[in-house]
Amino acid sequence: MYETKIAIQGGPASFHDAAARQLLSGKRIVTVNCTSFRTLCAMVQQSEVDAAVMAIENTLAGSLLPNYALLQEHGLHVVAEHWMPIDQNLLALPGQSLAGIRDVLSHPVALAQCNGFLQQHPHLQPQETPDTADSAKLICERQLQNTAAIAGKAAAELYGLEVLQERIADNLHNHTRFLLLQKNCPPVSTTADKAILTFRKPLHTATLALMLSMLQKHQVELTMLQTLPATDLRGQLVAELEANHVDQLQEAIAQVRPLVEDLQVLGLLQKAPRPAANIIQKRTAAIV
Amino acid sequence: MYETKIAIQGGPASFHDAAARQLLSGKRIVTVNCTSFRTLCAMVQQSEVDAAVMAIENTLAGSLLPNYALLQEHGLHVVAEHWMPIDQNLLALPGQSLAGIRDVLSHPVALAQCNGFLQQHPHLQPQETPDTADSAKLICERQLQNTAAIAGKAAAELYGLEVLQERIADNLHNHTRFLLLQKNCPPVSTTADKAILTFRKPLHTATLALMLSMLQKHQVELTMLQTLPATDLRGQLVAELEANHVDQLQEAIAQVRPLVEDLQVLGLLQKAPRPAANIIQKRTAAIV
Repeated sequence: MYETKIAIQGGPASFHDAAARQLLSGKRIVTVNCTSFRTLCAMVQQSEVDAAVMAIENTLAGSLLPNYALLQEHGLHVVAEHWMPIDQNLLALPGQSLAGIRDVLSHPVALAQCNGFLQQHPHLQPQETPDTADSAKLICERQLQNTAAIAGKAAAELYGLEVLQERIADNLHNHTRFLLLQKNCPPVSTTADKAILTFRKPLHTATLALMLSMLQKHQVELTMLQTLPATDLRGQLVAELEANHVDQLQEAIAQVRPLVEDLQVLGLLQKAPRPAANIIQKRTAAIV
Repeated sequence: MYETKIAIQGGPASFHDAAARQLLSGKRIVTVNCTSFRTLCAMVQQSEVDAAVMAIENTLAGSLLPNYALLQEHGLHVVAEHWMPIDQNLLALPGQSLAGIRDVLSHPVALAQCNGFLQQHPHLQPQETPDTADSAKLICERQLQNTAAIAGKAAAELYGLEVLQERIADNLHNHTRFLLLQKNCPPVSTTADKAILTFRKPLHTATLALMLSMLQKHQVELTMLQTLPATDLRGQLVAELEANHVDQLQEAIAQVRPLVEDLQVLGLLQKAPRPAANIIQKRTAAIV
């Protein structure tokens, strides 16, 4: 059976690895670990992999603007999206206790997400590492006593660690949106109800106002607009649009195309359900 | 003489430290090092410092969306802005040579910015640390041989290190914009030509189109629009506006206020000159 080669950032049992398996469920996949998002996009562009999975937004950190810029720069196509909960847990070798843990290894972002938990247990010493799942791997390989990793439960399973404490992040509504990227543009699906596009920032605000009115005439809603990183004042904008029918999206895009420069459609896809916000819970006293 | 207490992220000779001294040149300042941007904002809100300096945008990474969200959440006021070049250099103890260096310590973002240089010198082993300037401090304090730090030249001067190689970042057009933040709203300056505001994302695209038309009627240009991190679909937008006169900004804001919910003016200030883009140079083969 053919194995689909998917570039991801992070090692086995990382959040990208889980997202790739969920986006391509039913397919036999093999993941290729990239050390940066730029490498990941270049691997797709150079056909070294069949596709890639890349984080694009997090409910706490917002849009990952440099990743949109990479997509546009490499001319990649977005074929699907997927929201996934990011569930941080404290993992250690079997038989360890929370009281006995001294060092806590994880990626700086994961450590920051668990700041409240770490402050409530001041005997824990956070140590920054390049990856969540690889911190679990290190503990397993070196049989590190008195050491824990902050990572997803998949990492505990893969590396034979125990979950000492589950769901330790300050904000439990921590979800990340991942995109499935390909080099070639797939045929447009009739069920597509979302578009992602980039265009050069109009010189005048009037042009942007006109563009939005046109979208509205076609019953297309702008769900996200971001200014991308730029070394000059104009730069690029990225917009995400939603409509009931793919025809509305395509007609609206055709109408706005002459208004702006360098319009690129990065994807016409089916929107993924956004996670509900009613499960937001914040740990108290997590701040300062 | 009274010393103005300024919260920054990073230690002495860090980029925030330099930005604070440039933003408040002529004043005697003492910097207070915060370990996170959230702590920095909380210190201003709780009047533990007179003001804070916080990075908000970088030419390569784009807007720092979580920092805009922190500003809005803490109700802080932006009183000034400043663009500063981020110049990365390879620093080591006096007498060391590039060929003899093995470990290179720096913040992950600085290491990533110098990826091309590191690839051209494969004997160098990057090691992630929490701060650029503090990596230089560590080399000085422990008199580490065969070790270099990637940091600004100010760190070399402060810690008695030599610049082994200067300007080693892949993209030399690497500038960061810093904001000066206060708890209280200062009187509006007649020379203010820029506004920063946040508001709840309108439910319909038509509202946003109308808002932009109104700005345009007052000859106010939208120079930046970003969607802030949100746990629900609506969330907040942040906009930066520019006009020739402060009156135009104030009138335009008064007109759009009834159109949107939760409009907050984060600042009415004088815009800082944006660095010219004509010095862009890219190192070749820096990618993959």
